[in-house]
This record gives sequence, structure tokens and C-alpha cells, in this order.
Amino acid sequence: MIVVMQPNATEEHIQGIVNTLYELGLNAHLSRGESITIIGVVGDKSKFLEKNPQLMPGVERLVPISESYKIANIKFHPEPTTIDVRGVKIGGGNFTIMAGPCAIESKEQLLESAWAAKNAGAQILRGGAYKPRTSPYSFQGLEEDGLTYMAEIREQTGMPVITEITSLRALETAVQYVDLLQIGARNMQNFELLKAAGKTNLPVLLKRGLSATIDEWLNAAEYIMSEGNEKVILCERGIRTFETSTRNTLDISAVPVLRSKTHLPIIIDPSHASGVREYIAPLSKAAAAVGADGLMIEVHPNPACALSDGAQSLNPADFKALCEELKPFIQLAGRKFE
Amino acid sequence: MIVVMQPNATEEHIQGIVNTLYELGLNAHLSRGESITIIGVVGDKSKFLEKNPQLMPGVERLVPISESYKIANIKFHPEPTTIDVRGVKIGGGNFTIMAGPCAIESKEQLLESAWAAKNAGAQILRGGAYKPRTSPYSFQGLEEDGLTYMAEIREQTGMPVITEITSLRALETAVQYVDLLQIGARNMQNFELLKAAGKTNLPVLLKRGLSATIDEWLNAAEYIMSEGNEKVILCERGIRTFETSTRNTLDISAVPVLRSKTHLPIIIDPSHASGVREYIAPLSKAAAAVGADGLMIEVHPNPACALSDGAQSLNPADFKALCEELKPFIQLAGRKFE
Amino acid sequence: MIVVMQPNATEEHIQGIVNTLYELGLNAHLSRGESITIIGVVGDKSKFLEKNPQLMPGVERLVPISESYKIANIKFHPEPTTIDVRGVKIGGGNFTIMAGPCAIESKEQLLESAWAAKNAGAQILRGGAYKPRTSPYSFQGLEEDGLTYMAEIREQTGMPVITEITSLRALETAVQYVDLLQIGARNMQNFELLKAAGKTNLPVLLKRGLSATIDEWLNAAEYIMSEGNEKVILCERGIRTFETSTRNTLDISAVPVLRSKTHLPIIIDPSHASGVREYIAPLSKAAAAVGADGLMIEVHPNPACALSDGAQSLNPADFKALCEELKPFIQLAGRKFE
Amino acid sequence: MIVVMQPNATEEHIQGIVNTLYELGLNAHLSRGESITIIGVVGDKSKFLEKNPQLMPGVERLVPISESYKIANIKFHPEPTTIDVRGVKIGGGNFTIMAGPCAIESKEQLLESAWAAKNAGAQILRGGAYKPRTSPYSFQGLEEDGLTYMAEIREQTGMPVITEITSLRALETAVQYVDLLQIGARNMQNFELLKAAGKTNLPVLLKRGLSATIDEWLNAAEYIMSEGNEKVILCERGIRTFETSTRNTLDISAVPVLRSKTHLPIIIDPSHASGVREYIAPLSKAAAAVGADGLMIEVHPNPACALSDGAQSLNPADFKALCEELKPFIQLAGRKFE
Repeated sequence: MIVVMQPNATEEHIQGIVNTLYELGLNAHLSRGESITIIGVVGDKSKFLEKNPQLMPGVERLVPISESYKIANIKFHPEPTTIDVRGVKIGGGNFTIMAGPCAIESKEQLLESAWAAKNAGAQILRGGAYKPRTSPYSFQGLEEDGLTYMAEIREQTGMPVITEITSLRALETAVQYVDLLQIGARNMQNFELLKAAGKTNLPVLLKRGLSATIDEWLNAAEYIMSEGNEKVILCERGIRTFETSTRNTLDISAVPVLRSKTHLPIIIDPSHASGVREYIAPLSKAAAAVGADGLMIEVHPNPACALSDGAQSLNPADFKALCEELKPFIQLAGRKFE
Repeated sequence: MIVVMQPNATEEHIQGIVNTLYELGLNAHLSRGESITIIGVVGDKSKFLEKNPQLMPGVERLVPISESYKIANIKFHPEPTTIDVRGVKIGGGNFTIMAGPCAIESKEQLLESAWAAKNAGAQILRGGAYKPRTSPYSFQGLEEDGLTYMAEIREQTGMPVITEITSLRALETAVQYVDLLQIGARNMQNFELLKAAGKTNLPVLLKRGLSATIDEWLNAAEYIMSEGNEKVILCERGIRTFETSTRNTLDISAVPVLRSKTHLPIIIDPSHASGVREYIAPLSKAAAAVGADGLMIEVHPNPACALSDGAQSLNPADFKALCEELKPFIQLAGRKFE
Repeated sequence: MIVVMQPNATEEHIQGIVNTLYELGLNAHLSRGESITIIGVVGDKSKFLEKNPQLMPGVERLVPISESYKIANIKFHPEPTTIDVRGVKIGGGNFTIMAGPCAIESKEQLLESAWAAKNAGAQILRGGAYKPRTSPYSFQGLEEDGLTYMAEIREQTGMPVITEITSLRALETAVQYVDLLQIGARNMQNFELLKAAGKTNLPVLLKRGLSATIDEWLNAAEYIMSEGNEKVILCERGIRTFETSTRNTLDISAVPVLRSKTHLPIIIDPSHASGVREYIAPLSKAAAAVGADGLMIEVHPNPACALSDGAQSLNPADFKALCEELKPFIQLAGRKFE
Repeated sequence: MIVVMQPNATEEHIQGIVNTLYELGLNAHLSRGESITIIGVVGDKSKFLEKNPQLMPGVERLVPISESYKIANIKFHPEPTTIDVRGVKIGGGNFTIMAGPCAIESKEQLLESAWAAKNAGAQILRGGAYKPRTSPYSFQGLEEDGLTYMAEIREQTGMPVITEITSLRALETAVQYVDLLQIGARNMQNFELLKAAGKTNLPVLLKRGLSATIDEWLNAAEYIMSEGNEKVILCERGIRTFETSTRNTLDISAVPVLRSKTHLPIIIDPSHASGVREYIAPLSKAAAAVGADGLMIEVHPNPACALSDGAQSLNPADFKALCEELKPFIQLAGRKFE
């Protein structure tokens, strides 16, 4: 951390900062420029921050030098993390596709989706039982009934299952049924939920918030990890911009940026990022090429009848065709997909 | 709702839509342009939407005509709503200031803040007991202890109290102590929390999400209201943009926009919107002038020692001066502040 | 400027930076943290920047400490600037309203607008002769004919006139007719145009770019000022965000932010910021209250017939009413308006 | 175009609109909903728009149905356009790489860059002679001298050359030397420049503005095309968002969106989009995979000495390695690169 002093800061102001640092057992390194003095803070800056240094006389601003997330930080854990979900490996050279309907509507619909996903090559079944919908008058999900279908279909198909949790209550129910918990964009900074997920034993797929910076996202991952659960998977699903021809703007650069900052696996969700069925195939290829560890894609046996997100869901045939087209891209990117 | 057909849609495609509408008991109005045909949907569009019309052959896109929120909509409730919080009136020509510390740190700190707020003219005491913080390593709040201080200080000062709830558990505790529940920006689309708040009897101050559109915000209000609790107050606290010289960008236009769309009272929070103490006074004046129903401002007996948001907190003297300066602006805007 | 070294930077890397600085005649101040070393650069950093230090081995990133704009910077010119436009003073405690039609359509239309503006209290007449329009098929302006009307009407009404210049050719023509040049949002970084405006003798109203940061805006002002013309007025006209209920989002906080960074006068344009006639009055009051130095407002004798921006133009009666309503706000904000 | 009436619009209001349409020789199709009436406008809507219908009594808003760009629109030109630049084909199944230094610094530097680009497989040489720089104190380019080097080196290497034009004056000079004109992000809505480029015979590479929507971008292309020059190439170079870990946010979805709206070729510039050398290779692969028609990449013989954008420039060896890595992705995407 660096303290930048105001141009008119006095010697007394500067000594005030330095003395505070020494009293806290920290070190100070002064650099006097022609008009501005800066002070480098050496040691555990959190003690210093509790003193609200930006309010001390003569201080112009503080410049952070190191990140506030630690366990998620590649500096302290340089090897990429591989996460095992009932035998399916995520990260570390593998390419994983999670597919299934936006919302679970019935056991038949979920089963049909599961076989369609599996036949095309997807390794994990997704399905929403608790649906966060913008309007209270939209379909809100089957809740626990949906989860019992998931568990049953896992037995039939052998596919691990993932579902979104939207509250502590949903989490407590879901942990009894699923293999992977999803925390959605709208809950990325629902810190109570993050902490609770950090106390479970299940891997957590954490979607990026609608307008979260990458640093905030990694801090949200840190909330989960600091409770003891280090099995976090990051999922980029588009950010909000002024562009309206797609539902969100897929931030494809997030993949190389995250690679330089964290060891956690990175998944891309082109369905929510674009909101348009026709764009899913090209964006999936881009995701494979840029080096993502996998995809999350909405598949529905009959998108025209879907109760949620029909317009961005693929039907089984299109999904199978997409997986075939994707394979050489995945291979070219040096990843295993089987 | 309007269905816009593709330029190459056939007569059969058009009839397909029309027949679907008739089967659902709805009416269709065709408008055949030179290259494009559009179909007006008359009746309850929700039945039609369940059929995923955007996936029907020949359809280019759907254009919504009416809003999805109803109870919050000024069209169905043209009179401005006034909300009574233990005798303090919010909305309907009144100007209400909520002030207090970002985080409750001790009974003394809260009491001192309360008297500072009251002496300056604030009518409601704010204080955070459950703190949503970006990093898990920051101070997380005193939780229930903080709430007991609030209730106690309400007795001493006569000020109604408001606190942020960040989970169902926090809500269940808070309803026993406070007069007004706050749902913060990060939880604006925590739909479980919204529904739970809608089942309480307490007024709810709903902050706008970091990148929520005004329509999404009103739909979030609708979540609370559709559960039976119509006492919702909207609070604009800045949105996320590319500009970095302020913490967020105060969307001052949200006030007149909301006035044209909803009957609910509107409060502005210049502390979180700007993140800079020096900007709070000019933004507060702008808020009064633009026609807001009140302000929420962070006040701390000693900002330099605040455990949270010290840099944007006012000390008692500055807050008192601000309230004095504000009074003529409030009066000029035609509102009562007493 | 501070150089932040990578955690694994070697002693050799650090010495490499230090030696480069010494060779350039600059000074280096080292601050060795527990894991990271930072180097403060003392002296003229521009020489150092030419060496692309971010590419030197061991360097993680550079942190700028001082701004790149100088003449526009309040640090080097602490007194607020007042600009005289044919006797009308802008800045320095005055409040100035510029009003008139978006586009000049005829001499009659402009004359009628001018009297409407003047009768309501506006001091400067605006009118577009060169119109930057999103579509090439929209009305593009009367060009030089429009400017001759401006000059003529200035003689009749005594009002100084301002027009937007969209090219060097337009600038060369406009300087013969008008008193104040406007550079619009779309040309804020048309650096050739900025430099050419800097070589004229006329004051320049520089609008903020659609997504320009405040620092980029001040650098654009510096382009004009560094050519010798220090008479620059800044005009906030809304920035682009995800919100669609207004044409742009008025960044009202830009006023106090700019006050802390520059001595130049600041004008607000609520017409372009909102794009909606009903929102202009509340936003104008907010602009006065927040401390702006004036307003630019679109007024048209008959908005329903306007060839450009009719929906956001006020008619003479509404504009007069607005000016009356504004007066006490302007007075309260401590500014002269006469 | 659809006119949406207010819920309280009277029969008289509705007839007013209908009569206006008939008087203009247009047709009106009424659709009366339960609470809202909408009117479909059939015929040339531009005549109607001149009447400012949004200001007519009873009107709530207008909903455009068709795009305002015509020549750039895929609806009127369904075949993809191929543009020939001195024998190099852009679009139509080809993959084209434009490479070279951000700024031309000397003949030697440009020649070295040209051979490095050509040896790696790039077909077109880029180089900046007129540099739009945020600060007036940064290097501004060699101007015409730089262009003479370009022309000379084209003779030596056989590579067509492209340069950015930043003013009408630069355009007039550049057309004498180069094969392809570039209009940069900051000038995307410099309409005078667009029109002037539309009067030349040279192909134009039009970069997307920093915060331009895709529709505005296509309207900017229309400005060039409507002057008679239909040889426009679109270049996505990142848009401005709140994320700060990259210089801009590459909007990779723009490629499939543009494919559905226009027949023009689409190039991606990962250098400006990311601003970070390490991210260029993964983003280039994503660009090939998503279906772009080519890339524009900054290459410098010695990035550490570059006068502009050194941090995002590749050296010859890294650029050659990137082109080798890219080849199989380009082939997989079904494009020719030779």
C-alpha cells in the first residue's frame, strides 16, 4: 500500500503518517518527489487501514499494491486447481460441459434433457429448481420436487448434477441432492450465502455478478474459500454494458485475465451471456479457443415449450451438432474432452 | 405486446401466430407493412408468452408494450404513497433524512451518532449490524448486539431506526428490533429475501442494484409488494459506470423517471453514490432540488476511527452544517422538513 | 510515478530500473515490502515513460501519481476562471443560460427562438448549423446560411451566439460569425479539431464524450489550452450507461469532481442528458443546486415541428416558466443571474 | 414503426394520428388493446417522423421496427461482401492479418516491422502516421513523412498498407500513399470525415467507437456507403465498461451479431481491446474461432523502445509464433489464410 500525500502536505503531516505506522509495528518508506511525497507501507496493511488513513491530514489518496484475496490468488498457489465432481474432473487440462434445462419442469423433461446432454458428450447435468426471475409473476421453479428428480436421474444416467441455490434454505435442501452448487450472478455478493456455501463440502460454481469487476468476483470466491471450502469454479456469464443486441456482453478476456490472477477453473456460459440461440455455437468455439475449462449450456427437449429461457436453449439435435463441432477446437486448445 | 414478423415470413407463419392467439382466447390485430407484418396481441399476454412465441416460425422479435410490475405502477395507483414509520412520514410532500454510522461499532458510538443526527434534524437513525463487505477479511458487523443497541437508543432518542438485512436469518432477527428494513444494492435481486420482506409488516427501503435498470428495480419492489407489503421506499445510491473518480455514479435523473412510473417515495444516498465526503453536500442539495423525498447520509462521531466507510462519513458538525444549508433548498422544492 | 515490481523480481531487475532512472537524470526511491518492492520515480517522468518501463524485466505495473493535464489543472491555477463572451461572463460566481434550437431551420425560427430565450432570461443564443446525426438520412443542418442568420440575429437581439463545429472547415467558417465555439460529445477526442480550436481566439465550450472519463475530458481541454487558447468551458451532457429510460445518464457528480480538479467553468446540458422534455426542469434545478455555472437548454418556438430533437425541446412558455422557477435555486446557490 | 398511445388517449387523439398518416399518404393499422391502443405505420416513416409524432397528444412512445441503415443491411444485400485491397481479399471466406507498429517512428523501424509481419504471414502492413493521443504531450506521429515510408516499403515488400486518418487534411494526404484508410474509434461519429472517406475510392476500415452500439456503428458505415463507397470493413476493438483489468472489453459477440445484420467483413483488434501483450494470443484464437474475417495486431521490432503502445505490441518472434499457432484455428473455422 502506498500513501500519496497532497502537494501542500507539511512535514508534520508526513511525520504523522510515519509515526502511526511505527506505532502499529509497520515500516514506512518515504519517497519525496518534486511536488508530492509518497509513503510506502511495509507490513500488514490491515491494521493501518483500520485507522482510516485517507482521512489523516495531508493525505490525498491510498494506492493498493497487493490484492485483498489470498487463497484464490495465484501468487500463493501457482498450480492450477482441478476439482473432482463424482469422478468428473474440472480444470487442469480437462474440458467439461454442463448442460440441461434452465428450469426443471417435470421428471420427463429433465430425463429427456439428461440423455440428450449425455449422448452429445456433456459430463454434468444442470437444472434449475429455484429460479431467480426478474418479475414475481414468472415461473419460480419446482423447488425440492425438482431436486428429487435430479437425484433420481443421476442414478439412471450416472451424470453428476448441479443446481442453483438462491437462499440458505435452498442450500440446506440442495446439499442433500446435488453434487455441485451454483451461486448465480444476482447472488454473487450475497455474502451470507457465500459463507454458508463455504461451510459445505460440495464444489461451488460461482457466476460473475452482472456488473462485478474481476477483483470483486475473486473476493466473492475468497468468501467461500476462507470458510474452508476451496473447491470453487468461476463462471463468466456476460456483464452489463450499453449494448442491447445481446442480453449481456460476454467478457471473453476474463479468461486470460483470470489465468493471470487465480488458479481456479474457469467456465463460460454462452447461453446467458448472449441470450440468443444462434450465437451460442460461435461463442462456444471462442470459449474453447481462448482457453476456458468448459461450458455451461442450456438444453431443452423442446425449447418452444420451455417455461424459462426458451429463446436461448438448444434442442438435443443442435446441442449434439455443437458438441461435434466443438471437439476439434477443444483438442486444438490442448484440453481433454471425453 | 407486439409480434414483429421476419421480412420473409410466409402467410402460413402469420396464420400460425394468429391461430395460437385465438386458441388462447386472445385477439390478434394484423398490420401488414410493405416488407414487415406486425401482430398486436390483445388480452392477457402471459398465456401467450408461455408458448415461447419468439421461437415460432417467422417471428423476428417481441416488443413489450406494458410494464410487468403492477402494484408499484403509477398507472394503477396515481396518488403518491406516504409511508408512516412510527410517526415519521416518508413521501407525500415530506422530506426525511436518515442518518447514522455505516456500521454500528458500540453502544456509545451509536448513541453519539443518534444525538448528532437528531440535533441536526434527521428523523430516522440508520446503522449497520450486518455488513456486506467485498472482502471477507473486512469487519462484518456486530449483528444482534448491534440491533439491541438500536432498540435501546430508539427509546432514549425517540428516533425510529433502520438497518440493512442481508439474509433471511438477519431479517428474522431484525424485525424484532427495528422500524424499517433496508435491502441493499447487492441484494436487490435476492428474490427470497424480497419475498420474505414482503411477508413482514415493516416498511422496506429498497436500494437500487449496482447495475440495475429502473424497470428491474421496480420489479424487485413488486416482489415485496406482491406478498402483501406495499410499504416500499426506493433508494438511489449510484450505479456502476466506467467513471472512477467517484465510487459510483449518482443517477439523479432516476428521481423524475421514477416519478413518471411509480407512486413510491424516493430517497437518495449521496454517501454511497460518491464515496467522497466533500461531494456529499453538493449532491444532497441536488437531491433536494430534483424533488427527492429525502436523504440517507452516513454520520459518524469520529470518521477517522470508523470501522467502515470512514472516508465518506460526515462528522456531527459537518452534518449539522449540511442540514442547515439544505433547509432552504428543501423548502424551495416544496417539501416539509421538521 | 511509482513502479511496482513483481513479487519474484530479482535484485538485478530492481537495479536495472534504478540505473535507468539515474541515467536519465532522475531519482529513485526504493521501498522494499515483505513480498513486493516499489520504486518511486522523482523528476520528469516523461523521459522515463519513453523507455516503456512496463516492459522492463521484473516490472508488474506503473502507478501514475500526478495528472497529465497541466494548464487545466487546479493545482497550478487555483483561482476559478471567468470567461467573457461579448460582455456575458461565464464562471466566477455567475450563472449563464444558453438557449435556442437544436438545429437552425430558418431565420424566422431562429429569431423567434432568440427572443423567447432572451425574454426568459437566457444570455446566450445557441443554434446548430452543422448537425452530427447518427443516420446519414437525417437533416444535416443549414451550414453557412444558418451562421449568417446567427450573426444577423445577434445584431438584433444583442445576444452572443454559440454554434457547434464538426470539422476544420466548419470551424473556419464559424469563427467569422459566432462568439463561442462548441465541440460536441462525438468530437471530444477529435484532436485535430481541438488543436485548431486552440489556435482561435474564441472561447470554446467542450462537451464531454459519450463515455469519456473526467480525466480524458480534462486532457481534451488541455489540447485546446496547450495551443494558447485558455478560454475553455466544460459541458456535462450525460454519459452512456446501461439505463435506457433516459437518452444518457446525467453525471451530476461531475460538477463537484471537476471543481476539485480544474478551475474551468462548468455548464450542464439537461436536454441531451435526458432526452425527455418533462425531465429538464427537475434536472436544471439539480444543476443549479449542485453548483454548476450555467445551463444549455434546447428551446424551439414550436417543438412539434422541430427538424431535430423536438422531443427534448421546450417551447417558449415552458422555458420562461422554467427560468422563473430556477431563479431562487440559482440565488440560493450563491450565483448571479441577470 | 409503431405508435404506442397512452392508456388515457382519447378517440380524438387516435384519430389525430391516423389523419396525419393519411394526409402524408401513409397507412395506419389500429390495434386496440384492453388498456392501450397501438398504431402501425405503413409506408415511408421518414415523412411521419418529421412531424415529431412523439409530441402529438396522446402518444406515449414510438417503437422502430426496421433499421435506419440500408446499404449496410444484410436484408438488402444477403451475400457477404469481399473487398479487394491490391490483390489481398478481405471477407468472403478469407482470413486477413494486418500487422505493424502502432506509430511509424522511422523508415528503418517500419521496414523491419513490415518484413516481420510478412514473414509471419500477415498480408497487410499497418502503421500510424497521425496519432490520436489522449494527452497533447504524447508523441503525435510523423504525419506525411511516415506515409512516404509506407509507400516506399509497399514497393519493397509488396504489402498493401493501411493508416489511420484523423482529419480531412490527413485524409487528403493519405489517399496519395495508402491502399486502405482507417477511421479510429474516437472518430467513428466524426461524420464529416466519414462522408469524405465515402467520396474516395479506397476501402475504409471503420473501428467501433469506445461506447458505440452496433446499430450506431452500422449507421456510421452507412455514412461512408451512402456517399458511394461501399468498401467498408468493420473492426471491433473493445468497448468501454467498468472492468479495469483490460484497457477495453473485447465484445466478441459483436461478430455473430454483425453477421446477422450486415454483409460487411469483420476484423478484430485484440491489441487495443486488451492493452496487454499476454492476452493477445488467446484473444486472437477466440477471434478466429468465433468466425471473424481477420485480425489487426500491433507488431514492433523492439516493443521496449516503441514510442506508442509498447506494452501491447508483439515482437517479431512472438508474432511469428502467434501466426503459427493461429493457423489451425483459422483452418478449423473454414477460412483461407495464405
